[in-house]
Amino acid sequence: MSHNSQPAGTYAPVVMPFKADLSVDADRLIAHCRWLISQQCNLAIFGTNSEANSLSVDERIDLLDQVIEAGISPDVLMPGTGCCALNDTVKLSAHAAKHGCSGVLMLPPFYYKAVSDEGLYRAFAETIERVADDRLRVYLYHIPPIAQVGISLELIERLTKEYPHTVVGMKDSSGDWNNTKSVLDAFPEFDMFCGSESFLLDTMRNGGVGCISAIANIRPGAIQHLYENWQSGDADALQRELDDFRNILTAQPPIPSLKCTIAHYSNDADWNRLRPPLIELDEAQAKGLLNALDAYGFEMPGIIQKAA
Amino acid sequence: MSHNSQPAGTYAPVVMPFKADLSVDADRLIAHCRWLISQQCNLAIFGTNSEANSLSVDERIDLLDQVIEAGISPDVLMPGTGCCALNDTVKLSAHAAKHGCSGVLMLPPFYYKAVSDEGLYRAFAETIERVADDRLRVYLYHIPPIAQVGISLELIERLTKEYPHTVVGMKDSSGDWNNTKSVLDAFPEFDMFCGSESFLLDTMRNGGVGCISAIANIRPGAIQHLYENWQSGDADALQRELDDFRNILTAQPPIPSLKCTIAHYSNDADWNRLRPPLIELDEAQAKGLLNALDAYGFEMPGIIQKAA
Repeated sequence: MSHNSQPAGTYAPVVMPFKADLSVDADRLIAHCRWLISQQCNLAIFGTNSEANSLSVDERIDLLDQVIEAGISPDVLMPGTGCCALNDTVKLSAHAAKHGCSGVLMLPPFYYKAVSDEGLYRAFAETIERVADDRLRVYLYHIPPIAQVGISLELIERLTKEYPHTVVGMKDSSGDWNNTKSVLDAFPEFDMFCGSESFLLDTMRNGGVGCISAIANIRPGAIQHLYENWQSGDADALQRELDDFRNILTAQPPIPSLKCTIAHYSNDADWNRLRPPLIELDEAQAKGLLNALDAYGFEMPGIIQKAA
Repeated sequence: MSHNSQPAGTYAPVVMPFKADLSVDADRLIAHCRWLISQQCNLAIFGTNSEANSLSVDERIDLLDQVIEAGISPDVLMPGTGCCALNDTVKLSAHAAKHGCSGVLMLPPFYYKAVSDEGLYRAFAETIERVADDRLRVYLYHIPPIAQVGISLELIERLTKEYPHTVVGMKDSSGDWNNTKSVLDAFPEFDMFCGSESFLLDTMRNGGVGCISAIANIRPGAIQHLYENWQSGDADALQRELDDFRNILTAQPPIPSLKCTIAHYSNDADWNRLRPPLIELDEAQAKGLLNALDAYGFEMPGIIQKAA
């Protein structure tokens, strides 16, 4: 399983800024991408925390073009491309591969529930065959709490056997360490990202390659620090500290909490918008979150402040 | 709540034929629509049983254009238009309203789970405001077993209060009669369709207007017969007969079973294709289904046979 710029380390599922009319805000998105890169964080653009499934396919195509035209290297990009419709997934995946993105994060088709592994195999296989691009690197996206449709060990085995150079890794957002561990044990060559930094140390100790975490949007440095020092004597303490911080941020709905945090620390209330069905924190929630962050001494080093 | 051609009676969520390359087969779709209309069945085109979420937005736009250009009246059409992305839902709903379709069947955005009623209210309200077409008639689509995201009584109340001429009815595919009954009781003016013909008689006796059922794809006449005779002395027997037939068809996965049935009774194996993640019945399943249908004396009166 050799590929060019092999994804590893810390990825943020980049949160998506919207203008007042709820159209996508490419300028703020690019600015946030640049800040994340300055913190040694890679970009899982168009993930669950990006509200990617609240965007049209054309919006995602256009935004990826704009991000790359702005000078952001495809080496740090792992766009989400999995949709309910096969042809949408093909279109987004082909577009990402053509740009040379180092990987794509692919949800299974998620409308129908209790589908068979045979059906999911066909969905992924047909996508890969239709994209027909040697540059395509697929990371399977297992997130049963939201997609409901998951990725079984049998499915991974079949896909990696048939497409060993294409299906190269996975993000596990099950929240279930036993599942992550099973995949790491069964497929030692598979590149496993945990979906929460709370499993980062265990993932690294068991042969994983990093994490793709919501909280990397606001605190990438601390996560990357553990990633770089997971073999040090401090590692367990660093992990505990990440866990403590996570409790603050997940006390309220995470996606609006991330946006509220960025809005506050960049002095830019325009960040505080979500597309329905998601909604912003209410006043009490926002106050609770910001007070807790303040008490923690939270900072976003180098974040650009909007002029007052 | 007055509107022009008020939807009522039997609707089929029209199953979607695919060509060998899995592209949509407009000719077979239109032929099936014509057969359904010949059986006094209306068309809930682009429903769950239509694999609508396995189609791109552009495919749905193009197919609706072709169906209407083929001479099928918008009066009998209730296209499904609810997507995960607000702008996709707006695009499909505006297109259906512009064509004068008698209604649209609108799923809530279904990627994020455990979303708030406030978020869902905004999703529907924002769609209606953006479509901004007096001809739009929204039927809310409640199908928690698949979408997971459902429509609460509180949400119906708020939407019907704010948009009394637009949000006019609902399809309840919860499979839970208690839920259907609660909506019928709470909103007597709301046009309720049950999502399975097994609740048709109860729905009509409690003030509902009809059913939108998978099985109407292959046996519309019997369902419409109960609809037209629900106040007759035969009604309970007719309902029991529909229930017996339903048990045959739902012994295997329903969508491939419908396609297998149409393929067999029209002598046209091209009907036997599904887009992944759904798959066709295997040989044993197909044999079991067709034997059971044969033993039942099943017919599709007037269905066009492909030349042998």
